Amino acid sequence: MDLITVDKASTLVNNSIEDFGLEEVNYMEALGRVLKEDITADRNFPPFNRVSMDGIAIDFNSFISGRRSFEICGIQAAGSMQKKLEDLTGCFEVMTGAVLPKNTNVVIPYELVTIENGLASTEIEEVKKLQNVHLEGLDRNKADILIRKNTRIGAGEIGVLATVGKVRVKVAKQPKVMVISTGNELVSVDKVPLDHQIRRSNVHTLVALVSKFGIKAQTSHIEDNKEVLKQKIEEYLNHFDVLLFSGAVSKGKFDFIPEVLNDLGVKKLFHRVKQRPGKPFWFGKRGRNTIFAFPGNPVSTFVSCIKYFYPWYEKSMGLKQPERKMAILDEDFSFSPSLTYFLQVKLQQKGGKLYAVPVAGKGSGDLANLVDSDGFLELPDDRSTFTKGAVYPVLNYRGL
Amino acid sequence: MDLITVDKASTLVNNSIEDFGLEEVNYMEALGRVLKEDITADRNFPPFNRVSMDGIAIDFNSFISGRRSFEICGIQAAGSMQKKLEDLTGCFEVMTGAVLPKNTNVVIPYELVTIENGLASTEIEEVKKLQNVHLEGLDRNKADILIRKNTRIGAGEIGVLATVGKVRVKVAKQPKVMVISTGNELVSVDKVPLDHQIRRSNVHTLVALVSKFGIKAQTSHIEDNKEVLKQKIEEYLNHFDVLLFSGAVSKGKFDFIPEVLNDLGVKKLFHRVKQRPGKPFWFGKRGRNTIFAFPGNPVSTFVSCIKYFYPWYEKSMGLKQPERKMAILDEDFSFSPSLTYFLQVKLQQKGGKLYAVPVAGKGSGDLANLVDSDGFLELPDDRSTFTKGAVYPVLNYRGL
Repeated sequence: MDLITVDKASTLVNNSIEDFGLEEVNYMEALGRVLKEDITADRNFPPFNRVSMDGIAIDFNSFISGRRSFEICGIQAAGSMQKKLEDLTGCFEVMTGAVLPKNTNVVIPYELVTIENGLASTEIEEVKKLQNVHLEGLDRNKADILIRKNTRIGAGEIGVLATVGKVRVKVAKQPKVMVISTGNELVSVDKVPLDHQIRRSNVHTLVALVSKFGIKAQTSHIEDNKEVLKQKIEEYLNHFDVLLFSGAVSKGKFDFIPEVLNDLGVKKLFHRVKQRPGKPFWFGKRGRNTIFAFPGNPVSTFVSCIKYFYPWYEKSMGLKQPERKMAILDEDFSFSPSLTYFLQVKLQQKGGKLYAVPVAGKGSGDLANLVDSDGFLELPDDRSTFTKGAVYPVLNYRGL
Repeated sequence: MDLITVDKASTLVNNSIEDFGLEEVNYMEALGRVLKEDITADRNFPPFNRVSMDGIAIDFNSFISGRRSFEICGIQAAGSMQKKLEDLTGCFEVMTGAVLPKNTNVVIPYELVTIENGLASTEIEEVKKLQNVHLEGLDRNKADILIRKNTRIGAGEIGVLATVGKVRVKVAKQPKVMVISTGNELVSVDKVPLDHQIRRSNVHTLVALVSKFGIKAQTSHIEDNKEVLKQKIEEYLNHFDVLLFSGAVSKGKFDFIPEVLNDLGVKKLFHRVKQRPGKPFWFGKRGRNTIFAFPGNPVSTFVSCIKYFYPWYEKSMGLKQPERKMAILDEDFSFSPSLTYFLQVKLQQKGGKLYAVPVAGKGSGDLANLVDSDGFLELPDDRSTFTKGAVYPVLNYRGL
């Protein structure tokens, strides 16, 4: 069967997104989630004429008339009801965050004031009306939209949600994800494998990869037996939104996944992509189920998850896809097969530029190599030499 | 008192790190944590001569002698004990991940083989010894270090931990962090504030900011009363490693924090930094306690946490500080005061370069503005004009 290109595969995946609806969570649990309502200002910001420096508040006209010493008539603290300056020749001591007292309209900071015997004096020669006052509504007005729907909620957004008293927040519901391994050579992590066995690792890597979005995926292992596979996968299709497989999609005698998925009515959208690693990648849909069947080599599974599942998920959540991140190849490189090559690279920031240094790996089976690199440079399939200084898309998996 | 420079403040903070020791966690809980032991290979990788393509395995000499048809003597599946080819003129069908059968040393992929009546035939003209075999120990040898101590554990590292059967992993213990607000103007998020009040937001922002590292901070609010402050802060100093304050460090009448901390024996390392926003930042130590008292304006708290707490934490965990991320200023900008200015910017990736576009804000009180930007460009205090195209360090708070 013909291989499809990486771009075509991406398009098919991104055209297969799902809306998982929304749910309400507490604002502190909304961190990292995708907002599903506009957040508006419940009042003006600031909600009152707010003192923005510690000092004294006076009447502008009193200063203009030549007065430089002001009797202290009281203190306007942050969190106190607005007071009123009855004697316009006097002043209030005022604190940052306080309401500007009535009958005052100038704040002179303590640095420019001497206080003695209940009298605050200054030697400054001019003041401006409303200096050191953060005016009511200057930042935002009541009912202004502060955060738009479909924003990913970060720390700044948490602060805004708190400020407007948005205790319960509508966010996109997470898909229910099941990560499935097959392969009779696999034993669990806490077992000592026999000579011909290895431990299960890809499922755990996938769980870690999707947890970046706060998805708590479940895992399962199914033996290489068609009937058991059918029965279990049918069950998972009924209880999960997304199935992520690792392995059993190539040409081996026990690579039952494509056949079993077909038998269960999952529609294949493609199988085998012009890429390395990850050529045998299989992708399909059944109703609202989405099935990513990644090849079993650790690096294949890893890069395919980032390349295909990540954008699918983000688009499903309603997030706008950002411009693709690019990096500058830092060494000449060549790769002959007519496949998109995901080159493992170490990323380096220098002077506002992002450089990608190839990391010599041992192929798609070399899991430990992922530890030494930061991402994959996506080298297109239409050429075989890649020159130092050229710019290519990069999939960076070190989020920080 | 004289202000100290941002660089001097950073140095003092980074010289005040603490070692919080280590703890053992399950490998899946180790994600995002900092590894505190070297992880070594428990066996060779691959642990056996591993078939890397589905196909047939034959003896090289049999091919060299001219044979192109091989009787199929059995199947070597992944996860099966190693079999032995008794008849050297025959072959085994072999699956990716299987042990290479004894007496075979060439794998020919199914694509190049025709199978009929129990006979596998090929028309290829040459083979190489050990082709399509991933040799035992090629990737790593037993006892090789796969992940070094002091690595932050990502998805790739999780896969390696699983592979070597590292069920319990030594990681750096997290500091116990208490986030404290003061200020009588503050009411809790679920309350409707009176005209002169606002809701508590900075503590929640700080909790969100430190949760990036998996820290589960607690929060507390203390009223502006010296005796209450003393008693509560003493209690927190005894039960937490790190206190993060927001507010009450400036010149106001109720800015008791520096005085109270001093009374409690906390040694001030600096107070007031040549920066905007965040000038009144106070930092000190008492024994193994570390106290960051950030100014109360939302943007001041936010940028100070990223600028000072983040590197302090990462260095405390034993992580190497990466090169500072830089971005290219995308518009001319001017700022006269002799202060380091943290300019709010939107970040854009283009052609491997990172551009910082200034976002017009309303000053350090404008929390909603954090929603519209991605980071802060750190403009040095020794000049007042900043030209489009110049490169400055950037603090990016959109982790993804």
